[in-house]
This record gives sequence, C-alpha cells and structure tokens, in this order.
Amino acid sequence: MKTINLREKYAKFSEHWHPYIVAELNNNFVKLAKLQGEFVWHKHDEEDELFIVVDGTLMMDFRDKPTAQVKAGEILVVPKGVEHRPWTKGEVKVMLVEPKSTLHTGNIVVEQTVKNPEWI
Amino acid sequence: MKTINLREKYAKFSEHWHPYIVAELNNNFVKLAKLQGEFVWHKHDEEDELFIVVDGTLMMDFRDKPTAQVKAGEILVVPKGVEHRPWTKGEVKVMLVEPKSTLHTGNIVVEQTVKNPEWI
Repeated sequence: MKTINLREKYAKFSEHWHPYIVAELNNNFVKLAKLQGEFVWHKHDEEDELFIVVDGTLMMDFRDKPTAQVKAGEILVVPKGVEHRPWTKGEVKVMLVEPKSTLHTGNIVVEQTVKNPEWI
Repeated sequence: MKTINLREKYAKFSEHWHPYIVAELNNNFVKLAKLQGEFVWHKHDEEDELFIVVDGTLMMDFRDKPTAQVKAGEILVVPKGVEHRPWTKGEVKVMLVEPKSTLHTGNIVVEQTVKNPEWI
C-alpha cells in the first residue's frame, strides 16, 4: 500500500532496454524501462504486452502493419503472437504491465535479455 | 495494435466513478475513470487493483494504515482483501489495470456500481 513515484524509480537506473520491477498484481509485474535506439524483433507466444509511454515517443514496427507511434500519455497493447520491434529516436520511458513469466525479448534470447529482472 | 491516446478517451465522458474500458490484455481490462468526491468502502476478495494516477491527486483510505496520497505520475497497488476508500478533493483522472471480473465497488453493490463497463 505504498505509493510508487515513477520519477524517483526512473532516477535509480540508467541502462537502456533493461526492465526493472516496481510492483506486482495478480501474477503480473509492473516494470519500468528506459529505451533508446533499436531493439530486436520478437514476439510473446502466450502474453499480451501493455506499453504505457511516460516520456518520449516509442515507435513500434510490425511485420505487416504500419509502424505505431506511441507518445507520452498514450498506450499500446501488443497482442500475443505478434512480432514487434520497438525503437526510438531519443530516450523513452515506458511502464509495462505483463505476466510475471514474460521475458522482454520474448521468443528471442540475445545478449540484451534480462532473465530475472530485479526490483527497484 | 492501435495507439490509445488517454486525453482523447477522457474527453469522451464526464461522469465520475464510472470506469470505461480502453484496452484488454491477458484477461485484464485497462480502464479509465474520473474520480471526484468520496467513494464507498470496499474490497476485492480475489483481485489486486492497480491505480495509475494520470491527473490530480488520489487519496486512498485504509482501515488500519495511513491514508495514501497518489499524485499524477504515481501508482498504487491495493492488494486483494484490503478494504479501501478512494476520495479526492478535485477531479482526478486514473487508469486502472485489473482482471476482467473486477467490479469497481468490489464486495459492495451500490447505486454507483457499474456492472458491465462499456468500451470507449
């Protein structure tokens, strides 16, 4: 029952594409991440993924659809099974809500993959 | 895969304490609500509830703990089984993520209860 201040949490880390957990509910984690540059193409076979953009503009490529642009104050759900590639021009702060089992790189395990995200 | 703009969605309704659905994921709904004044004491026996404050300051009373203050840019998880009473001084805009089965008035059914929230 403790209020979580997003600005304070974001101040605690600087890495890009590295999600940190700030809350849990109903077997989901709420995670924060800073994004910059281009991520890998991936999908989540079993989990929809909620992107809430807190700062900046997130771009999301899809294989067969136009790129989505998600600005601060906007949200995007990427349904399970849909390949996507997030990228940005500058730094973007996002909040994610997703099942505890979700790996941020989905079906792809790469150098950037964080298998056990930490709480901050 | 459509970007959802919160400001545009909030502009579509004016009622207080009436949640509207804007997205779904993993058997959860993402809902928006405008809050003003005092709500009823209630709890959710099976569901944790995530409050994301988009605008204004949400106050949350608990039976045995200090009142939580949740400002824009802050979030609060109310664990299942915990009685709570949201209230505000002015209008507050919140985004909620909760299982589809969650009734906003929890174990209490009152005049304000919206049993089948609509999509906007």
